[in-house]
Amino acid sequence: MRRLRMGMIGGGPGAFIGPVHRFAAELDREIELVAGVFSSNADRSSSAAAQYLIDPARAYGSLDEMFAAEKAREDGIDFVSIVTPNHNHLPSARAALAAGLPVMTDKPLTATLAEAQELSGTVAKAGLPFGVTFTYTGYPLVREMRERIAAGAIGTLRKVVVEYPQGWLSQPAEGKQAEWRVDPAQAGAGGCIGDIGVHAFNLAEFVTGEKVTRLLGDLDAVVPGRTLDDDCTVLLRFANGARGVLLASQIEVGELNGTRIRVYGDKAGMRWQQDDANRLEILHADGRIETIQTGTDAVGPLAAARTRTPGGHPEGYLEAFANIYRDFAATLRGEDAPCLPGIAEGLRGMAFIDTAVRASANEAGWVDLTV
Amino acid sequence: MRRLRMGMIGGGPGAFIGPVHRFAAELDREIELVAGVFSSNADRSSSAAAQYLIDPARAYGSLDEMFAAEKAREDGIDFVSIVTPNHNHLPSARAALAAGLPVMTDKPLTATLAEAQELSGTVAKAGLPFGVTFTYTGYPLVREMRERIAAGAIGTLRKVVVEYPQGWLSQPAEGKQAEWRVDPAQAGAGGCIGDIGVHAFNLAEFVTGEKVTRLLGDLDAVVPGRTLDDDCTVLLRFANGARGVLLASQIEVGELNGTRIRVYGDKAGMRWQQDDANRLEILHADGRIETIQTGTDAVGPLAAARTRTPGGHPEGYLEAFANIYRDFAATLRGEDAPCLPGIAEGLRGMAFIDTAVRASANEAGWVDLTV
Amino acid sequence: MRRLRMGMIGGGPGAFIGPVHRFAAELDREIELVAGVFSSNADRSSSAAAQYLIDPARAYGSLDEMFAAEKAREDGIDFVSIVTPNHNHLPSARAALAAGLPVMTDKPLTATLAEAQELSGTVAKAGLPFGVTFTYTGYPLVREMRERIAAGAIGTLRKVVVEYPQGWLSQPAEGKQAEWRVDPAQAGAGGCIGDIGVHAFNLAEFVTGEKVTRLLGDLDAVVPGRTLDDDCTVLLRFANGARGVLLASQIEVGELNGTRIRVYGDKAGMRWQQDDANRLEILHADGRIETIQTGTDAVGPLAAARTRTPGGHPEGYLEAFANIYRDFAATLRGEDAPCLPGIAEGLRGMAFIDTAVRASANEAGWVDLTV
Amino acid sequence: MRRLRMGMIGGGPGAFIGPVHRFAAELDREIELVAGVFSSNADRSSSAAAQYLIDPARAYGSLDEMFAAEKAREDGIDFVSIVTPNHNHLPSARAALAAGLPVMTDKPLTATLAEAQELSGTVAKAGLPFGVTFTYTGYPLVREMRERIAAGAIGTLRKVVVEYPQGWLSQPAEGKQAEWRVDPAQAGAGGCIGDIGVHAFNLAEFVTGEKVTRLLGDLDAVVPGRTLDDDCTVLLRFANGARGVLLASQIEVGELNGTRIRVYGDKAGMRWQQDDANRLEILHADGRIETIQTGTDAVGPLAAARTRTPGGHPEGYLEAFANIYRDFAATLRGEDAPCLPGIAEGLRGMAFIDTAVRASANEAGWVDLTV
Repeated sequence: MRRLRMGMIGGGPGAFIGPVHRFAAELDREIELVAGVFSSNADRSSSAAAQYLIDPARAYGSLDEMFAAEKAREDGIDFVSIVTPNHNHLPSARAALAAGLPVMTDKPLTATLAEAQELSGTVAKAGLPFGVTFTYTGYPLVREMRERIAAGAIGTLRKVVVEYPQGWLSQPAEGKQAEWRVDPAQAGAGGCIGDIGVHAFNLAEFVTGEKVTRLLGDLDAVVPGRTLDDDCTVLLRFANGARGVLLASQIEVGELNGTRIRVYGDKAGMRWQQDDANRLEILHADGRIETIQTGTDAVGPLAAARTRTPGGHPEGYLEAFANIYRDFAATLRGEDAPCLPGIAEGLRGMAFIDTAVRASANEAGWVDLTV
Repeated sequence: MRRLRMGMIGGGPGAFIGPVHRFAAELDREIELVAGVFSSNADRSSSAAAQYLIDPARAYGSLDEMFAAEKAREDGIDFVSIVTPNHNHLPSARAALAAGLPVMTDKPLTATLAEAQELSGTVAKAGLPFGVTFTYTGYPLVREMRERIAAGAIGTLRKVVVEYPQGWLSQPAEGKQAEWRVDPAQAGAGGCIGDIGVHAFNLAEFVTGEKVTRLLGDLDAVVPGRTLDDDCTVLLRFANGARGVLLASQIEVGELNGTRIRVYGDKAGMRWQQDDANRLEILHADGRIETIQTGTDAVGPLAAARTRTPGGHPEGYLEAFANIYRDFAATLRGEDAPCLPGIAEGLRGMAFIDTAVRASANEAGWVDLTV
Repeated sequence: MRRLRMGMIGGGPGAFIGPVHRFAAELDREIELVAGVFSSNADRSSSAAAQYLIDPARAYGSLDEMFAAEKAREDGIDFVSIVTPNHNHLPSARAALAAGLPVMTDKPLTATLAEAQELSGTVAKAGLPFGVTFTYTGYPLVREMRERIAAGAIGTLRKVVVEYPQGWLSQPAEGKQAEWRVDPAQAGAGGCIGDIGVHAFNLAEFVTGEKVTRLLGDLDAVVPGRTLDDDCTVLLRFANGARGVLLASQIEVGELNGTRIRVYGDKAGMRWQQDDANRLEILHADGRIETIQTGTDAVGPLAAARTRTPGGHPEGYLEAFANIYRDFAATLRGEDAPCLPGIAEGLRGMAFIDTAVRASANEAGWVDLTV
Repeated sequence: MRRLRMGMIGGGPGAFIGPVHRFAAELDREIELVAGVFSSNADRSSSAAAQYLIDPARAYGSLDEMFAAEKAREDGIDFVSIVTPNHNHLPSARAALAAGLPVMTDKPLTATLAEAQELSGTVAKAGLPFGVTFTYTGYPLVREMRERIAAGAIGTLRKVVVEYPQGWLSQPAEGKQAEWRVDPAQAGAGGCIGDIGVHAFNLAEFVTGEKVTRLLGDLDAVVPGRTLDDDCTVLLRFANGARGVLLASQIEVGELNGTRIRVYGDKAGMRWQQDDANRLEILHADGRIETIQTGTDAVGPLAAARTRTPGGHPEGYLEAFANIYRDFAATLRGEDAPCLPGIAEGLRGMAFIDTAVRASANEAGWVDLTV
């Protein structure tokens, strides 16, 4: 067993998610960042390489250059990680797959549903591993929740409330992180719905094991002058008839990244939130709340295998993110990684965004979600 | 100043809300329960009187009997409190007003909107004080929230999320409290929406000072065999254009009475929940959360005037309820009580229930809320 | 069954605890405040009566006057409630008992241990009901804790941490409430230790069912110019060998009334705090936390019998206080009330205060606590 | 700038803290684990190297071997990290310093105070960087607390309550992690006091900037058959006269790693706990609680410089630990790192352990803490 070598696409100076992917990929020492096209500007790409402390010779100015140079090395990259704005996901992934490289990409899968469908076909033909960093599925207790629900812990699913409140876009956008997210040319058809709503959607399907089949969207651009939505409510119906509500907002001043989910069956309920990520609450019908904590004997093998510290020493966002990379590394080594979000989850996410935007336009009412 | 004398209508053996009204009315010693038609069955009425420790001679079997007998006494009742199932609110209130007695009634105002409109006219003609126990408006920090928002603390209102999750009706109904609530003949057109959704609606309008003008309802009877809704999501639009979401459910297993509200303007946000009723969170744009606690110098005069204990000694549901009775007593004494929910709020609540039910039927989409 | 009639001693204008006793005594309608010597100044006593809305003729200027006048009435008082500063507890109780009246008194029992011993003898001779309002024992879940521990839920007791942090005396005292508490002539030998430390001590013995046999005191007057202690740490040993720590402070700026207790046996632990009074946490060895909530099927009969509202509708300080009055009323009616703190608990509290003060003086080390 | 190369001493199969040091050292990519004497058994050392995915040729069976081999390499180690049981800290550090290598060691500094004094002299003579991983000082908000307190945010320090509750040693020890900690030959004179009490002590001095000058210890071995203490209470006096209480326990069943600290001055208070590590509470005298969150504009430059994720994406234990390694790396590069715990803090920790054990023996009362 050796460390897998990662080439990054995107993640240049000022990036937020690029460094996160680097932290996450390397945390468990199974992967190492060794090369990258951190920016299409070669100087900026070099400057990022210096920040990451990687060999400056491996900071490239274009994908073609990276793929060619790395292929020629004995210790060339094993896969790429795509951390660009959304509209560059498809071309980057297409090129990497064409170069025979597995791909890990940030979410949402692409900028549009059509792109996602194209990419889905490309991935299928390429037959290469493909992962999408739906971060919240990496939290050990989110996996515990999924596993317990699958085992019948709440009975038949009836209701899901999933939320992702933020407030950082409550004023007209400023700064690199904000600007591309409110620009349809870079972000795609969805603003808030594509940036964080899709996390909530993925989380809901991941945890419950049920698919959303219909939805009703109520999206709006609240901040004056904004084109893309910045506040979203989506009503959901799941395949088994269960009801759901998805709340995502980027204009709830003072909220940070309060991702949370509540799920109710006919026997019990469960609650989890990123703010208190190392605890999972099970709500019993008799009024008892049973709290499960990471790093203790109370969690099952799935969560235990993705926890690094003893109970009470909190793990957080980077560790959750790292769990997705561990899954991806496992996949590259031919091992099973049932929790890794892949092209199918990425495609469903895009179908969700597209459907929610359409359902919201002209108050179209309930619309089927198909993929 | 003397204690006001209250006659109760409803609240017989097995009742939940009757005793609550008694606790609340008497807590501050401005009001005393002295008589009642606790049940239309005279024996049961007497038995309730014994439980309340009031003079058995003043337990009546009918409204007419009570009004006649009490009128004849020098120390007869000053007003009535109506705590019956919904369908008896209108006839009880009508009779009391006809007998010249001010009325405090439990929510919702009546069983149907038509009844509410009739009652509204009757109250207007009678010119007598009329209160409705929208409990949550009695919490000191809910009033603090209203006052601060009115003073501009959050800027222009943009978003409201108000929730009332319960789980106690997650199984087919059993027991006196459950049975009438799921019976359209007694509860009216709304199930969950009328029992607790209306609390959430009232809370949202009370706190923000803005009126809901349109809504979209997604109500359903989740538990098999149930006629009335037991799970509701309602999308809201306020007069100033602000967006809102109202969640109410009685099938979220393990949830008790988790009433809570979050409000965001363009400058700041606020959060309050019954579970932690003595704290109000103000969310600042810079990431600071400022927590205001009852019984301290940090609260304004409105909240301070309705708090009985020093900071850190929690007050709860009965004290909040009692604040509404204090307001009602003040009104009877001719004093100003700007927070007392009255016929107008009661009528708006019924319009909300009616509109939400209609909006939900056949997925009717967005419907105007008028009153 | 009729309402018992209470005469109050103390509780005049500006009082904090007098009104609390009134709220608590009357909440469940088993008791009624009808008379009082609210102040030794007859005018002030009358003015208090007006505030309480009781018959002005029953506001007396002296104990003798009250006892004589009330004895002469058919509807005279059934017992007295003593809510004066500490140094008046003994003379008031002595006089009431001599007049044949049962006594409920605020804590601590008296100003000094010698007084407590005298009163203990007097009570024994009088053979009349005697209660002490150790408030925290009135919380339903504190009783649940006691009951579960007695039933073996935590195994053998090993460790107790009990805390009562306040901050309101962090500056030189101002106002009626503060002034007498820092004056040895009125408060007795203990400042913070007698005002709130004794609550913590009582809570620890109540919950565990074990007696403290030795202690080491570390008391100090932190605020310059103060005579009595305002910050206390006391190390404890229980009869079974268990270890304990008691923290009480009145100079922890920003703390309100954060009473809390943690108890550990060899099998499990439990945590309760006034800040979240309607929840009790049971800590299991496998890392699960089981949370029990009032008003649900998860609590036992003792707690259920002293809860008024359904789960999720919080009860607070006044309701806890009222539970002690219900116990006292039950005792007056000849019923069993095993949780009512009485003369024995009051006397132990005084022995605790006295021992802690002595143990702290000159760093005396460990001292036996006997009574 | 290049990555610094770390050689680990200890951390073999079954180790807990070895992997933590690896995670922490490498997280920010400034340091790389490249070699180690993971065990004095060469086979076990190799097997650990395989787990860490480092070059098997650099897994050594003895310190001498590692120092010689690494010195001979162009890319040899830059420093060592000592993660053995306590009794091996001194010999390991002595040898590394003699080989000219800077040292980062786990806490406590050594097994005994005498060893610590010796090591202190050795470090002084060697003139090489020396760090001690007092983990909690790595949390950004612990540094924020220190910085704000130094700037006068709470006024003059009056009171500290610092706690570290655990429950995992509530039964007779089992497993590698437990066994050495309860063995005086490996752990030294202190059990719980040396394992976690010293963290609490260091945290208190770090945050307040005040030194403890006297203490009174109450330590005991609660679990039958245990030699070393497993439950500790220590009363503290600080140089400025402030009072303190330190609670550490390993027998509080169900507690995990609930490190927390509360600090009060004459103007305000502050609270922080590992359980909610990304929030710092400032308690104001008027009853407002101001909560500061990592990753927001509300934190100062010191905390901001040691935070990796935006507000609301929690960081945890590994990130805190990594901050200490970043400080150490900075020191190696000749930069200033004022928060790095070094030999002085390590020595004070040992003086604390030694003094607490002596103070507790025979109930010796208050003892001066000198170093």
